Amino acid sequence: MRELKVDLGERSYPIYIGEGILDGLAATLAKHGIGVKSPLLVVTDENVAKHYLTKVTELLEADGYRVANAVVAPGEKSKSLSVMEEIITVALEAGLDRNSAVIALGGGVVGDLAGFVAASYMRGVRFVQIPTTILAHDSSVGGKVAVNHRLAKNVIGAFHQPEFVLYDIATLKSLPDRVVREGLSELVKEGFIMDREFVEWCDANASRLLALDSAALEHALYIGCGVKAKVVSADEKEGGLRAVLNLGHTIGHALEAVAGYDELHHGEAIAIGMVGAALLSAKLGNPPSIAEETERILRQFGLPVRIPAHFDTDAIMSAMMHDKKFKEGKMVFIVPTAIGQVEINPNVPSEWVREIVDRLKGEA
Amino acid sequence: MRELKVDLGERSYPIYIGEGILDGLAATLAKHGIGVKSPLLVVTDENVAKHYLTKVTELLEADGYRVANAVVAPGEKSKSLSVMEEIITVALEAGLDRNSAVIALGGGVVGDLAGFVAASYMRGVRFVQIPTTILAHDSSVGGKVAVNHRLAKNVIGAFHQPEFVLYDIATLKSLPDRVVREGLSELVKEGFIMDREFVEWCDANASRLLALDSAALEHALYIGCGVKAKVVSADEKEGGLRAVLNLGHTIGHALEAVAGYDELHHGEAIAIGMVGAALLSAKLGNPPSIAEETERILRQFGLPVRIPAHFDTDAIMSAMMHDKKFKEGKMVFIVPTAIGQVEINPNVPSEWVREIVDRLKGEA
Ligand SMILES: NC(=O)c1ccc[n+]([C@@H]2O[C@H](COP(=O)([O-])OP(=O)(O)OC[C@H]3O[C@@H](n4cnc5c(N)ncnc54)[C@H](O)[C@@H]3O)[C@@H](O)[C@H]2O)c1
Ligand SMILES: NC(=O)c1ccc[n+]([C@@H]2O[C@H](COP(=O)([O-])OP(=O)(O)OC[C@H]3O[C@@H](n4cnc5c(N)ncnc54)[C@H](O)[C@@H]3O)[C@@H](O)[C@H]2O)c1
Ligand SMILES: [Zn+2]
Ligand SMILES: [Zn+2]
Repeated sequence: MRELKVDLGERSYPIYIGEGILDGLAATLAKHGIGVKSPLLVVTDENVAKHYLTKVTELLEADGYRVANAVVAPGEKSKSLSVMEEIITVALEAGLDRNSAVIALGGGVVGDLAGFVAASYMRGVRFVQIPTTILAHDSSVGGKVAVNHRLAKNVIGAFHQPEFVLYDIATLKSLPDRVVREGLSELVKEGFIMDREFVEWCDANASRLLALDSAALEHALYIGCGVKAKVVSADEKEGGLRAVLNLGHTIGHALEAVAGYDELHHGEAIAIGMVGAALLSAKLGNPPSIAEETERILRQFGLPVRIPAHFDTDAIMSAMMHDKKFKEGKMVFIVPTAIGQVEINPNVPSEWVREIVDRLKGEA
Repeated sequence: MRELKVDLGERSYPIYIGEGILDGLAATLAKHGIGVKSPLLVVTDENVAKHYLTKVTELLEADGYRVANAVVAPGEKSKSLSVMEEIITVALEAGLDRNSAVIALGGGVVGDLAGFVAASYMRGVRFVQIPTTILAHDSSVGGKVAVNHRLAKNVIGAFHQPEFVLYDIATLKSLPDRVVREGLSELVKEGFIMDREFVEWCDANASRLLALDSAALEHALYIGCGVKAKVVSADEKEGGLRAVLNLGHTIGHALEAVAGYDELHHGEAIAIGMVGAALLSAKLGNPPSIAEETERILRQFGLPVRIPAHFDTDAIMSAMMHDKKFKEGKMVFIVPTAIGQVEINPNVPSEWVREIVDRLKGEA
């Protein structure tokens, strides 16, 4: 097992990463001062519940915890105020009090939703994360929790740090292949932001990662969480530096906004977005090899690197203009300046972005 | 104009209290670094909008601010996640961004609701309070913001401190008489907690306060906010001391829970609750004169000091048992030990409370 500290002063917390560590959940809760007196609430989704809810409940009850649970429908739709309200009904009926904790058992959807419940229930109770996707390495660092509004994603939320994160590699084995790939997209992204060595390691170990090799995953999640933790520690409330984490997300979010149902997963859209950012980089005068390398590596993970031809460029551009990252009308872009290095460029002309979007659609 | 500082380290803020100071709203925003670039959102209710929304909007627009507004129905029902969602729709459509501010123009309902919107919108934007009721002196200090769940009041919320509070005495002149009286109930409560001199002053100036005399109100709000600020500064997140503010609220909340529609306002229920706490105090061995004084003073403000006879004692008791202040089954009560002094007594037998409830119903 590895342990990584997310350094946030008073609100610092550890991430435990290892295979089979879920078995130690009750002991870990106790170690973190979460006792058996007040009931716990496990929030999860139907897919995850099928594999792990009984196990988690039994582990906790065996140690004397009272455990309520709220099982939501899988998918982004569950990140809503109305699902939040239903979860709070469960919490109230189970008698959760100020000393209770909310446990998120699942991917980023469950983490964001349960985290916002924990942030808001009685104005804040303790929160524990048990991420069960690779992408959730991202949501397990930084304390950003949120639900969606029908007009905008993640627009209703809080900063609420967990007590600890327990990342059991074993829970990843049941992930569908496509969810594995998109998680790896965000994981490699951490390397593209600030760790060339990690990008090279991912490049060399792509097949082990895709095969969910335990040692490889443990290493990659440790490094990936570490990059995010480093950025977040330096900039907890998103002053500036934290923006680098959005590499690939400007174009990526716009693609998600215009994509049809299930056409592009988040990590897939981000893969295309990272290629786009690298192409912009070339236009800004950086070596074109950055874009070539980025594309080659992402292809290895079976990730898309082109925008499907039927996507409308105008729609993509207008989705981008509504993105909250465009503070007061300017186009801010995170662009790589080398593999493992990015800059925040606040002056990217929107015509250049349009040109890149068209190129991403054109070539095969 | 008086200025009171709520001392919370980094999150400290001033409360400005005075007659006519609303006219300086735009300048005060500017002074606090809230500029004209990002749109503002004014949240208010229909009653308050009728009197002051046009004025506030014109004042702001005259100084170049763009102002959106959300006008909710008056009353506790508006403190809900669904009304919150509607307000966020307005915010998104008006283009509020991270640099925007949400302005609460109204009583405690509007303050709590708008405050939770501000706490959650894009994970937190700036918040300004313009309280228009006397009771809102309470909600303007401490940063507690929340909406209700159908099973429990104020159970979904956050701590979110305002940038400043602008308390214009002139806006209180349009208050209905009953709302004035219940506001004064909570204001005198601040004295009962820790300021004997203020209680005596209120006693001597009851008729001026009831007549909404500006100088009297300015003084009373200054002292009342000051008491709350003192308690809150010492205990921002409700560790222990802050509980003293709940004098009268244990019985009061239970009465509200069993009361029919509009039968008892909050401040009225709290007045009865304060008498109840004083009677408990006598049972605990303190001088019975505390209860007599408490009752005499509250009567001067035209406040109820007895439980209406048709209220069911069992229902009141069971509502009290569900109150979140009863941590792990024990009955915690705030009881006066003198006029202007209270203690937190964690060991009050529930039979004693029942006896007091019966007495409060019995006598006239
Ligand atoms: N808070 C943050 O900082 C942050 C960062 C990145 C992403 N996010 C959020 O994370 C969400 C995406 O996360 P995600 O990709 O983990 O999505 P997800 O939670 O929807 O999980 C993806 C799918 O995998 C299923 N699943 C999860 N774990 C499984 C397991 N172990 N076995 C089998 N199936 C499993 C889920 O039911 C779902 O169908 C988005 O809502 C995004 O906004 C948040
Ligand atoms: N956050 C806190 O710390 C805190 C503390 C105490 C109370 N509260 C909350 O405050 C709320 C009660 O506050 P309230 O008593 O101010 O209630 P309120 O906001 O409902 O106002 C009472 C009534 O007066 C009307 N009104 C308000 N200002 C007016 C004006 N200037 N002229 C004419 N009519 C006006 C309102 O429309 C309403 O009908 C409760 O929801 C309570 O939970 C919060
Ligand atoms: Zn992402
Ligand atoms: Zn009150």
